[in-house]
Amino acid sequence: MKLHVRLLLTLLLAGVGSLASGTKALAQTDPLPSWNDGPAKQAIVEFVHATTDQASPQFAPPEARIATFDQDGTLWVEHPIYTQLVYCLDRVPAVVNAKPALAKVEPFKTVLSGNREAIAKLSIDDLLKILAATLTGMSVDEFQAEAKKWLDTARDPRWKRPYTELTYLPMTELLKYLRGNGYRTYIVTGGGQDFVRVYSEEVYGIPPEQVVGSAGGTRYGYDKNGRPVLTKEPKLLLNDNNAGKPEGIHLMIGRRPYAAFGNSTGDRQMLEYTKAGDGARLAMIVLHDDAKREYAYGPAQGLPNTKVGTFTQALYDEATKQGWVVISMKNDWKRVFGFEQ
Amino acid sequence: MKLHVRLLLTLLLAGVGSLASGTKALAQTDPLPSWNDGPAKQAIVEFVHATTDQASPQFAPPEARIATFDQDGTLWVEHPIYTQLVYCLDRVPAVVNAKPALAKVEPFKTVLSGNREAIAKLSIDDLLKILAATLTGMSVDEFQAEAKKWLDTARDPRWKRPYTELTYLPMTELLKYLRGNGYRTYIVTGGGQDFVRVYSEEVYGIPPEQVVGSAGGTRYGYDKNGRPVLTKEPKLLLNDNNAGKPEGIHLMIGRRPYAAFGNSTGDRQMLEYTKAGDGARLAMIVLHDDAKREYAYGPAQGLPNTKVGTFTQALYDEATKQGWVVISMKNDWKRVFGFEQ
Repeated sequence: MKLHVRLLLTLLLAGVGSLASGTKALAQTDPLPSWNDGPAKQAIVEFVHATTDQASPQFAPPEARIATFDQDGTLWVEHPIYTQLVYCLDRVPAVVNAKPALAKVEPFKTVLSGNREAIAKLSIDDLLKILAATLTGMSVDEFQAEAKKWLDTARDPRWKRPYTELTYLPMTELLKYLRGNGYRTYIVTGGGQDFVRVYSEEVYGIPPEQVVGSAGGTRYGYDKNGRPVLTKEPKLLLNDNNAGKPEGIHLMIGRRPYAAFGNSTGDRQMLEYTKAGDGARLAMIVLHDDAKREYAYGPAQGLPNTKVGTFTQALYDEATKQGWVVISMKNDWKRVFGFEQ
Repeated sequence: MKLHVRLLLTLLLAGVGSLASGTKALAQTDPLPSWNDGPAKQAIVEFVHATTDQASPQFAPPEARIATFDQDGTLWVEHPIYTQLVYCLDRVPAVVNAKPALAKVEPFKTVLSGNREAIAKLSIDDLLKILAATLTGMSVDEFQAEAKKWLDTARDPRWKRPYTELTYLPMTELLKYLRGNGYRTYIVTGGGQDFVRVYSEEVYGIPPEQVVGSAGGTRYGYDKNGRPVLTKEPKLLLNDNNAGKPEGIHLMIGRRPYAAFGNSTGDRQMLEYTKAGDGARLAMIVLHDDAKREYAYGPAQGLPNTKVGTFTQALYDEATKQGWVVISMKNDWKRVFGFEQ
């Protein structure tokens, strides 16, 4: 009996061993197939090895492995207008329908005119008015249902695809690669937290509780049947841009990230804060220099920057000085989108 | 060769099978040994089965399994003063040392006098002044180091033990039981988020990113060496009490909990919000009715309520009406603290 048990154990262990080496072999296939070999890919792989190899002096314990990603322009297309703003502009007719007096008030009048040039010239203050009118005043559940319905039907005018397909394949590979190495991946976006949470799990594999974004307050109350309701209020709790990014990370996560990824001046402080931690830290910025496959904007590119975030020469210079790694969309990415063959 | 492989596989599967049934046998030992058999324990076990058994009509997918716990009076002792306030009072001399003019200003003068009766009579406004003076103005890192140092040395006057040992054993068993069944456990406290995060991982197995609490703002800046610093500001972002609890849950988690645990009127809205969800939802409140082993306060008890949260007759009545389960410390808990034999 004892011999039988020992034989079983031996075979079991042998089996477990071969299973384990099978896993290892799988892990050794390229986890980042859409990245060209080059300094960006190399920096990622070296960082992951340095922080996850127990023998490394820069080993980071699993609970500390936090990676934060800006969304617009970093994980998906932000040009020429970032997606949530398209949603808000599309919602204006419904808002005016509910409050007809708004039809004669700016900026709603301009949006209803459909004049693209005039809409493109709206000021930040005008845009904030549109955001407040279209993103607040309803219950959290109603907002989620509305946004989901829009995302299911709206199409990007250039690629004629749902916005949720305009994610960068190399970045979704990177998210999975980091998660496969014990990192928890967070979105830290200047966009609306509630908006991104509607699709983050499905699109990025990032659950709502790992989405940090600009957030308005909610008000707890009861509906006519006495059931609790959270209503979205036009009160900004967290402006998750610039200094608001590390502040939001502290509020929502409470730990300094080991890795952070952005593409604009709105990400500068998050990258600084991340890189200033002890041990190995990775800070990377996506440079949009691919006019053919996506867009070219930022330093020495043809197009102007978008309104929400700008990639300036000063940011490029700080990247060089601080040891952030620039990701050239044109040179570092073999493929840009998953839908391309 | 083929036969050999098949034999190996058979033995392997047999081995895996016996390992699995071994695990099952382990899981079937009582996961809540410090709970007496009774309606509270039964409600917990039934809720977990209903939401985790795939065959159950009330099955909750793993990603939706969120359980939220108030801290003071629910996970650890809050009587006669909640721990963070003890910390703040202890910090007053250091604050006055840095700003000597405060020694002659109320409420600091009273705190420095050491007159316990006078300190106990300080108003909520006075306490807020003390909180602001002792919890803000320093960097996030300095605050963490200070709080950790205090927690390592301070002792509760009744039990002569570190405050972090005054956790309720039945509740820490409950945290582990829920986590063992795929639940993510969150603290949702009226206390300070930054304070609780200092020890939550070590004491409760709850990482900082799963602590939601009253939170002040931080300000991003640079120290004299140009390194990024987050400074704690006297600006309240989230008052995580009463309606602030469901609002904070929406902000920080973005999902409605399946289970919530509290002990005072400050938890009422969190319990309502949780219980109003679809399917099986569990709402429980701890009744402090054990003058001998801990304290008795709240409905029909001898002691007055604490300042931070009160267990009123109205709360007790709502519990009955809404189907919340009352945990009687005296009757439902076999043991209260881990340090007792």
